[in-house]
Amino acid sequence: MNGEYCAEIIGVGTELLLGNIVNTDARDISEALSALGINVYWHTVVGDNRERLKAAVEIAKARADIIITTGGLGPTCDDLTKQTLAECFGLPLVFHEEEAEKIRAYFKSAGSSAMPESNLSQALLPEGCTVLRNHNGTAPGCAFFSGGKHVLMLPGPPRELRVMLEREALPYLRRLSDSVIVSHDIRLFGIGESAAEERLRDLMLSISNPTLAPYAGTGEVRLRVTAKAKSAAEAEELMSPLIEKVKAVVGEYIYGIDVPSLEAAAFNLLKARRLVFASAESCTGGLIGKRITDIPGASEVFKGGVIAYSNEVKSKVLGVSPDTLERYGAVSRETALEMAAGVRKLAGADIALSSTGICGPASDSRGRPVGLGFIALSSPEGGFCREIRMGSDRDRGRTVAAHHAFDMLIKYLSGTLR
Amino acid sequence: MNGEYCAEIIGVGTELLLGNIVNTDARDISEALSALGINVYWHTVVGDNRERLKAAVEIAKARADIIITTGGLGPTCDDLTKQTLAECFGLPLVFHEEEAEKIRAYFKSAGSSAMPESNLSQALLPEGCTVLRNHNGTAPGCAFFSGGKHVLMLPGPPRELRVMLEREALPYLRRLSDSVIVSHDIRLFGIGESAAEERLRDLMLSISNPTLAPYAGTGEVRLRVTAKAKSAAEAEELMSPLIEKVKAVVGEYIYGIDVPSLEAAAFNLLKARRLVFASAESCTGGLIGKRITDIPGASEVFKGGVIAYSNEVKSKVLGVSPDTLERYGAVSRETALEMAAGVRKLAGADIALSSTGICGPASDSRGRPVGLGFIALSSPEGGFCREIRMGSDRDRGRTVAAHHAFDMLIKYLSGTLR
Repeated sequence: MNGEYCAEIIGVGTELLLGNIVNTDARDISEALSALGINVYWHTVVGDNRERLKAAVEIAKARADIIITTGGLGPTCDDLTKQTLAECFGLPLVFHEEEAEKIRAYFKSAGSSAMPESNLSQALLPEGCTVLRNHNGTAPGCAFFSGGKHVLMLPGPPRELRVMLEREALPYLRRLSDSVIVSHDIRLFGIGESAAEERLRDLMLSISNPTLAPYAGTGEVRLRVTAKAKSAAEAEELMSPLIEKVKAVVGEYIYGIDVPSLEAAAFNLLKARRLVFASAESCTGGLIGKRITDIPGASEVFKGGVIAYSNEVKSKVLGVSPDTLERYGAVSRETALEMAAGVRKLAGADIALSSTGICGPASDSRGRPVGLGFIALSSPEGGFCREIRMGSDRDRGRTVAAHHAFDMLIKYLSGTLR
Repeated sequence: MNGEYCAEIIGVGTELLLGNIVNTDARDISEALSALGINVYWHTVVGDNRERLKAAVEIAKARADIIITTGGLGPTCDDLTKQTLAECFGLPLVFHEEEAEKIRAYFKSAGSSAMPESNLSQALLPEGCTVLRNHNGTAPGCAFFSGGKHVLMLPGPPRELRVMLEREALPYLRRLSDSVIVSHDIRLFGIGESAAEERLRDLMLSISNPTLAPYAGTGEVRLRVTAKAKSAAEAEELMSPLIEKVKAVVGEYIYGIDVPSLEAAAFNLLKARRLVFASAESCTGGLIGKRITDIPGASEVFKGGVIAYSNEVKSKVLGVSPDTLERYGAVSRETALEMAAGVRKLAGADIALSSTGICGPASDSRGRPVGLGFIALSSPEGGFCREIRMGSDRDRGRTVAAHHAFDMLIKYLSGTLR
């Protein structure tokens, strides 16, 4: 296979057609296939309806080389993707005892002794297919080649889809290709997507292999460097001078390459230095703790913390002086610094982070604007505080506040926190 | 037209196929059309390519009564939706002087004196169409009826699309429809999707209006009841006996109807009773706090809490006795109960929740299995504890643990916690 082959993604699910959910699966798969050099030319969505799904598959067979379906692999009677696709390609469904065993084991480990028998229908798979393992659920996916078409069936729930795509489907698709595509993800914090793009535009437009493309995340920016070559080593050689050029232009904003998040970058630095931190959270309400403990092994770098959502907890548990709260308010540089110092002492940690801010909907009693926040870091070398603007969107604002906390931690550990 | 007519949404834009953006337009239009009683049976996405768009429109003409396109209305050479659709329906494009004037005025009001001439191509519209005004940009949309099909062309940028949909396209479509569709979301916790479906299957299969369909969330289940009728009141009347039947079968698992989450249900109950709670989190690492503080106004019901990710914080801050930690371990009923009681006292709250468990990757030093957890609730009436199985997936396990905490809180406030 080469890059001239084209793919269609068929989403199966009435909930998509009712507008209950947005089709992030198609986006995720499209992004991944683009990175592999496979052209996605069509997205289609049909409901849980055998006739319309069949018609959609016939259309896809006539125009695409690779057909990827999402959804409809579950145990309920709505879930008809495997049956319909197998029928369209003239393949019988075969019972996989090995998959059935995995499904039984999954229910056992989840503590449900009584597994409904209908779940075993998930172990029915097209004859001769490659099983794509579901690391986050019971319904396995599958892949087969038939009638000149490559067909992959993936689950609908995004958390199942993403892991199966990454660990099972992409390795399968990569084997079809005679060239390799290698990517690196340069992660930036503290600069907007359009500002990053403006600085890098001439560089981006002057190259074709490797390529450089920006993607916006919530409050952060990813730059993807991609090269196509005969071998991974050759691709790396193509990319390395480009990555150096990017560093020369936006280096101050880069917090990591191929690291999944700010908290993961902080985790790696803390672990290497054998340092532990604690958190005192007001506006982020537990999000800093939640994000660091998303990482397996977090207990090596995180002692815990206090969610100080009321002034009572701020003063009684963290020891913020009532005078500070009175004079400067809960949302102030002074309170943020005392919160961080307080939790550092309380938890016996090397470093501590704190957050306080106005997430809205209303501004505070002192009339400070929604979106104002302070993030502080307490360390043996003293305290640091950053004033931030979180904007008026609650979710985004809280995410950005936690971003800043981890960014300060990374900069502190790298000796660049000012 | 009646509710039996069906619609296809065609998104036009290479950025969708590259995975740069997610197709929220299709979701927004689907949701709005469902509410009007129009069935959306297909979503299609094609790139900025005349031949593939033409082929997609021909497919849509053969299967749908209403075709709605999004994107490709702008002034750049990529924007070819109007030209292609007009061609597919044999309509000439006509220059609308009135629209041209609006476009010139828009540029003037935006402070750009020099408008690129290419912008006037946006004033070319299919002969005889209804112009759909763009309140947030320069490219007008349009609607026409030709060859037995209703065709609407809307802009791609979500902020332009949403306003044109609401103010221009829906009034146009409403005039075509004579029925409404109303839905209710019944939310369940404590039962799996397949078990819920097994209990409700006969009921689901015996009805056609209203309908009943299950959807799985992470660790919870939604049942959607939908009815189509001449009026919203009539639809409600059709649904009310079905909802009663569902309650009779799975009532013990229902935590709310049309409530977005367990934490929102808990929030509503706490607020109504003017009670506040606090949290002491080990395995959930801040997730309980994060979820309750996702809700604007959370400070009315949540004082804060302690993230007790180390034994040191459990004993020093929460007052869990070292003897308890020694004899029963950090992951035990006894520790969970002392954590909840400790934080309730510390934060001065009416009620407190705690979590402790083994999220993995490794089991604890006592050899207890990954996935074992305890959730406790402390109240003036004493303590309650629930032993749970979180499974081996870290993300899912933590989500389920927080679900259980909120479920216990809901049951406590409803007087059904045992």
